Amino acid sequence: MTARPANAHQSQLLRLLRDGGPSSRAQLSEQVCLSRSKLAVEVDRLLEAGLVVADGLAASRGGRRSHSLRLSPELRFLGVDIGATSVDVAVTNGELDVLGHITQPMDVREGPVAVFEKALSMAAELRASGLAEGFHGAGIGIPGPVRFPEGVPVAPPIMPGWDGFPVREVLSQELGCPVMVDNDVNLMAIGEQHAGVARSAGDFLCVKIGTGIGCGIVVDGRVHRGTTGSAGDIGHIQAVPDGRPCACGNHGCLEAHFSGAALARDATEAARQGRSADLAARLAASGALSAADVAAAATAGDTIALDLIREGGTHTGQVLATLVSFFNPGLVVVGGGVAGLGHTLLAAIRAQVYRQSLPLATGSLPIVLGELGPAAGVIGGARLISDHLLLPA
Amino acid sequence: MTARPANAHQSQLLRLLRDGGPSSRAQLSEQVCLSRSKLAVEVDRLLEAGLVVADGLAASRGGRRSHSLRLSPELRFLGVDIGATSVDVAVTNGELDVLGHITQPMDVREGPVAVFEKALSMAAELRASGLAEGFHGAGIGIPGPVRFPEGVPVAPPIMPGWDGFPVREVLSQELGCPVMVDNDVNLMAIGEQHAGVARSAGDFLCVKIGTGIGCGIVVDGRVHRGTTGSAGDIGHIQAVPDGRPCACGNHGCLEAHFSGAALARDATEAARQGRSADLAARLAASGALSAADVAAAATAGDTIALDLIREGGTHTGQVLATLVSFFNPGLVVVGGGVAGLGHTLLAAIRAQVYRQSLPLATGSLPIVLGELGPAAGVIGGARLISDHLLLPA
Repeated sequence: MTARPANAHQSQLLRLLRDGGPSSRAQLSEQVCLSRSKLAVEVDRLLEAGLVVADGLAASRGGRRSHSLRLSPELRFLGVDIGATSVDVAVTNGELDVLGHITQPMDVREGPVAVFEKALSMAAELRASGLAEGFHGAGIGIPGPVRFPEGVPVAPPIMPGWDGFPVREVLSQELGCPVMVDNDVNLMAIGEQHAGVARSAGDFLCVKIGTGIGCGIVVDGRVHRGTTGSAGDIGHIQAVPDGRPCACGNHGCLEAHFSGAALARDATEAARQGRSADLAARLAASGALSAADVAAAATAGDTIALDLIREGGTHTGQVLATLVSFFNPGLVVVGGGVAGLGHTLLAAIRAQVYRQSLPLATGSLPIVLGELGPAAGVIGGARLISDHLLLPA
Repeated sequence: MTARPANAHQSQLLRLLRDGGPSSRAQLSEQVCLSRSKLAVEVDRLLEAGLVVADGLAASRGGRRSHSLRLSPELRFLGVDIGATSVDVAVTNGELDVLGHITQPMDVREGPVAVFEKALSMAAELRASGLAEGFHGAGIGIPGPVRFPEGVPVAPPIMPGWDGFPVREVLSQELGCPVMVDNDVNLMAIGEQHAGVARSAGDFLCVKIGTGIGCGIVVDGRVHRGTTGSAGDIGHIQAVPDGRPCACGNHGCLEAHFSGAALARDATEAARQGRSADLAARLAASGALSAADVAAAATAGDTIALDLIREGGTHTGQVLATLVSFFNPGLVVVGGGVAGLGHTLLAAIRAQVYRQSLPLATGSLPIVLGELGPAAGVIGGARLISDHLLLPA
């Protein structure tokens, strides 16, 4: 079974079943512009192709109970989300519900061969657990710009060995299924749009604050990737004129002032300088501090940790204020590992954006945390490949 | 004659004739997915409706000469571009060639009633000169955010009386034809896209530096207006932290540091302080300085004038660098009154953007002056209403 519809009508029917779940023929016919007889023809073809199955009786709506249709329960998509320091792999059904999800720590700087070896063994683990016999498609996110049509990373700033690595081609061969590759932040935006807080949003920004910082841009429901695939790469926008030196060679980049990495660095410095007993104790206990330690210290009431988070939120808000005035989105979603810093971070971002952006652009602008946590990226990956496969052949 | 096609095929045929000029049936049939007989039916209907006329013989292509088709030569569109200090009104034919164009000084702060009285008398003047008997549609640009679907300005910062004024409704009644209203910067972008330097660009930014400063955003060939119509309103993005106070209440806004108004103010100050003999002479001669005076002084080699232009370009470049990193456009067009400052301005903008943006985003990014000058807005207006009317009824 391949997962591809033969024409636009079949494509529409498969989308309805994916996004609306099991439906009767009567329910489907209300949503498509097809005569009953033509609908029957297309449904029969989808049944024959094994993409759709008749699945017992649909809920009665007063009249005779009709057989319900649903996507083949055998459909399986793989979502892979490569972060700077971890890999998430999940398997979904055709409706993109997550059936299994594994996270493992991993340093992206080990290079694509090592990273994908790990990701493939995680996928094999999910298969071995009985969740999937194989995959009908896979969507892969990587933490850097991607030449989208070719599925190839391009000049990722801190990822030796990744530039030009044929991710799509290699994984498609290894997995034996179609593969699409995108920037991890775009996948997060797609995930939150499919199943999270951005479900009804047409134009929105999705800011991912993890080890680095990036922004997914959705225009009219579609991800805007830019001319060279680097749209939303906001980590190197200047947040502080003549500010800290950044790995990129410039000064004052947002990422140099706030990101998971910058936060860990600042917290370590505060601990070493004796400015925070709480952070110093955590540093002594584990030998290193992470953004999660700062979050824990803040929750425990440590004022230095709270200050670091507020300051980071303010820097993020300064950059976002510009982007909000420019882009006039209907929603801003904040996610990624550092979103675990929660409402302290969100409050600082909001205060800065509402203070600094045009009132017309912020008048009714919600700035909210993502809903899906680490599942956003893998659901986004499954959705990306599903959308691709649902294009008529 | 109304200018509306009855179906999508007719719409496509009219677009081909608009953008490609007179064509034979054979040429049209190569560009549409219609059988010869169906094409003939649709062409006959367009001829009957008077939207298309048979126009002598098309250029022979080896075989028998065939009658050429073109848009009705009677089609007339009106483009109106309201600036902060001037009004441009032009009449075009169906192919959107400008047949006549009038500019008059006007202060937008006189309010919509006075401004449109002037614009309508300019339109009447064009009609009286024999260029048009009437108009089949009009596209109007105003220098502030617009609720696009309703054609109503919303909260324009320095335009008393404009907020909520029913521009579309009032002008449609006065002119007796369909009217569309948009932000003036968006019209400039549409104009440069239709007939100017952005003809082949899918994703581009169009920065208009006039009395104020704004940016048209085109994504995938279509203007992005944002959730409340304020997308691209970059004049109040912070260019200089703790910088000059701005009329909007914030500090350091781009417009407070560079725009036609800021440039005139800075030049006047330099003249009064005796820092530039050239500017002082111009001030003495005319009683007030404008951006055009600064341009003239710069051309004459005045170093203060050159410095003011360079500094303005640098501030503009600082904001643009952020937007380029974020949006990753394929082209940046710089236009508007101050674009008359020319290559000195362009060089300063380029230097800052290329220095500060991500290399991946600027690697092959042209930053160029607009080609159409003050005609961009009025051509954009004609294109806007033409596109609207070419939607199938």
